[in-house]
Amino acid sequence: MHAITIPEPGGPEALEWAEVPDPEPGEGEVLVEVTASGVNRADVMQRRGFYPPPPGASPYPGLECSGRIAALGPGVSGWAVGDEVCALLAGGGYAEKVAVPAGQLLPVPRGMDLTTAAGLPEVTCTVWSNVFMVAHLRPGETLLVHGGSSGIGTMAIQLAKAVGARVAVTAGSKEKLDRCAELGADILVNYREQDFVEELRAATDGHGADVILDIMGAKYLERNVEALAVNGRLAVIGLQGGAKGELNLGAMLTKRAAVTATSLRARPASEKAAIVAAVREHVWPLLEERDGDAKGGTDGNAGNGEPRVRAVVDRLLPLRDASEAHVALEESGHVGKILLTA
Amino acid sequence: MHAITIPEPGGPEALEWAEVPDPEPGEGEVLVEVTASGVNRADVMQRRGFYPPPPGASPYPGLECSGRIAALGPGVSGWAVGDEVCALLAGGGYAEKVAVPAGQLLPVPRGMDLTTAAGLPEVTCTVWSNVFMVAHLRPGETLLVHGGSSGIGTMAIQLAKAVGARVAVTAGSKEKLDRCAELGADILVNYREQDFVEELRAATDGHGADVILDIMGAKYLERNVEALAVNGRLAVIGLQGGAKGELNLGAMLTKRAAVTATSLRARPASEKAAIVAAVREHVWPLLEERDGDAKGGTDGNAGNGEPRVRAVVDRLLPLRDASEAHVALEESGHVGKILLTA
Repeated sequence: MHAITIPEPGGPEALEWAEVPDPEPGEGEVLVEVTASGVNRADVMQRRGFYPPPPGASPYPGLECSGRIAALGPGVSGWAVGDEVCALLAGGGYAEKVAVPAGQLLPVPRGMDLTTAAGLPEVTCTVWSNVFMVAHLRPGETLLVHGGSSGIGTMAIQLAKAVGARVAVTAGSKEKLDRCAELGADILVNYREQDFVEELRAATDGHGADVILDIMGAKYLERNVEALAVNGRLAVIGLQGGAKGELNLGAMLTKRAAVTATSLRARPASEKAAIVAAVREHVWPLLEERDGDAKGGTDGNAGNGEPRVRAVVDRLLPLRDASEAHVALEESGHVGKILLTA
Repeated sequence: MHAITIPEPGGPEALEWAEVPDPEPGEGEVLVEVTASGVNRADVMQRRGFYPPPPGASPYPGLECSGRIAALGPGVSGWAVGDEVCALLAGGGYAEKVAVPAGQLLPVPRGMDLTTAAGLPEVTCTVWSNVFMVAHLRPGETLLVHGGSSGIGTMAIQLAKAVGARVAVTAGSKEKLDRCAELGADILVNYREQDFVEELRAATDGHGADVILDIMGAKYLERNVEALAVNGRLAVIGLQGGAKGELNLGAMLTKRAAVTATSLRARPASEKAAIVAAVREHVWPLLEERDGDAKGGTDGNAGNGEPRVRAVVDRLLPLRDASEAHVALEESGHVGKILLTA
C-alpha cells in the first residue's frame, strides 16, 4: 500500500508519499481500507519529531480515519468485512490501509457520507472524554472553549449547547467568531483584541467559566484559573503555549478548582474503547437526529433536515498532498476539520 | 459566655479569653453548649490575620467542636435539646457556645467520649471529601499522605487502609513515622532525610501515587506531579509551602493527571451538609465498628475492643489556654489532634 511517511522530522516537506508494507490486523483488530483521514495538530508535532508514536503504534501519522473493513483479525465480533466505519487510531491514518482495535471503531452516522465521518473520531472522543467524562459539564453551566473554530472547538460548541450549557469561545478573527456563533456559541471573544478573563466575567455577571477546554497550556494557565468559577474545572488538552506555567494554588483553593490534562493517544486500548463506547451512546444520536426541516444537506451531512450536531469540514485534500494540509493547519486559517482523501 | 477572641492579629498571645454575647441559633441552626473544640492550622492562619472568617461566620476561631444541644432554632428537625453531638463549624468553636446549621451536626460515635469527638469533624470531612469524593481513591490504589502524623494524616491513613488502599506517608521524625506505621501506613518517608518521589517509586515498582493528599502547596507541587501515577490525582488542602508554584502541564498530560485544591470552610452550608451526610454514612460505621477483641479502650475510644478507625488525640488543654495549643501546633511536635476543653 501507500502511506505518508516521515523519513526525517522537519517542515511540511518532511511528509513523503511512499510504498510501504500492508499492515496486518492482530488479535482483536480489524483492517480498514481508508477512505479519508483527519488532520490533527498532533500530526504536526509528530512530523516535527516532538511526538513519537506510542509503543506498538503505526509509525505513520494520522489519529483517525474512515473507510471500509477489509479484513477481521482473530477474536473480532460485531463487525463484518465491508462495513463502513470511522476509527480512533494510535497512528497510521495517513495510509491506504490501517489496522485498528475493534473497540476503537464507530459506525458512520446515519445520513453522513463516509468521507466526512473521517473527521469525527478525534473531536468527538476528545470533547466527550474531557468536557463530559472528566469535567462533568452540566446543563446551565458555562463552558469556555479556546480555539472555538478548530475541529475540536466546533464540536465542543455544539455538544455543550446540545446538553443545555452556555458556551463562550475565543478565536482570532471576526470571521471565525461568526462561524462559532452560527454553531451556537453565546459569548464571543477575539483574543487578539480582548482579554478573555474580563470579557467572560462581564458576560456572566462575574461568575466565570464552570469548565474551560484549553489548548494553550502554560501561556493561558494563570488567566484560565482567574477565569474559572467556584467549583470550576480546567481541562488542558494541548500545549500550544508551552508546558510549564505558574499555578496559583491559592486562587484554586478559594474556588475549589480542578486542573486536568489528558491526551487520547497515549491511553491504553481499554480506555479508548470505553470513551468510544460513551461517544457512540451519547454523541452519535446527536449526529443522526434530524430537526425535521426539509433543507437538503450539501455539506456531507446530507439527509432530511439538519442533524442537531454537525461535522464541520474546512476542506478536502488528496492524501498524497498531506504536506499542503499541514501548511494549512499551521497557518490556522481553517474552520473545522481538514481531511485527506485516500 | 466566654470565647477566645482575636482583638489584633499576631502570635499565640493574640488569643484573648473574653466575655462576649451568646450566639443565637438562626433558621435551621442549633445552639451547642461546647464540651471541647479541635485546633486546626486554619485557626493559626486566622490568628495571624491571613484567613478572615467567611461572610456570616462567627468572628472567633474554631472550625469544629463537640457538646450538647442547648436550643433549637426554627425549622430544625431530627435533633433534640440535650443530644450529644459534634459539629463542623465555619468558625466560633473556641467558645462556650456556638450556633451551627443542623446539617453540620454529627452524633457522637457509639463508644467514644464526648470530648474526643471534638476532633472528628474537620479530619473526617476533609479526608472523605478530598480523598474519596473528589479524588475517588479506590481499593488497591496507593495514597500518599504528606504530614502523616497530623490530625488529617492519622485519619487519612486509617480511612484509606479501611477501604483497601496502600498508604505512603511523609513525616519529619522516626517517632512520627512509627505512629503512622501503627495506624497502618505501609510506606514511610522521612522528608528530612529522604526524597519522597524516589522512595515512593522504589516502593511501588515505579508506579507512583494514585492519589496524593497535600498540605504543602507550591513547595511540593513539582515533586508531587512527578510522584503521581498515570491517572493520578493530587488533592491540595493546605499551602504551608506557599501558594504559587510551577506546574508541569507536559508531565500532567502524559499521565492524564488532575490537580484539585479545596477548603472546607468556604463551602456553602449545602455542600458542607452533603459532605457531613457522606461522612456519617461511610466513616461513622468505621469509628463504631469493633474488631471484637477484649482490649479495653483507655484513649477515649472506650468500649469492647478497638474500632476499625480511631480518633488520635495528642493532648487536651483548657480552652482559655488556646495560645498554648497554638504554640504546640506551630512547633509540630504533636501526633493527631490537639483539643481544647471548655
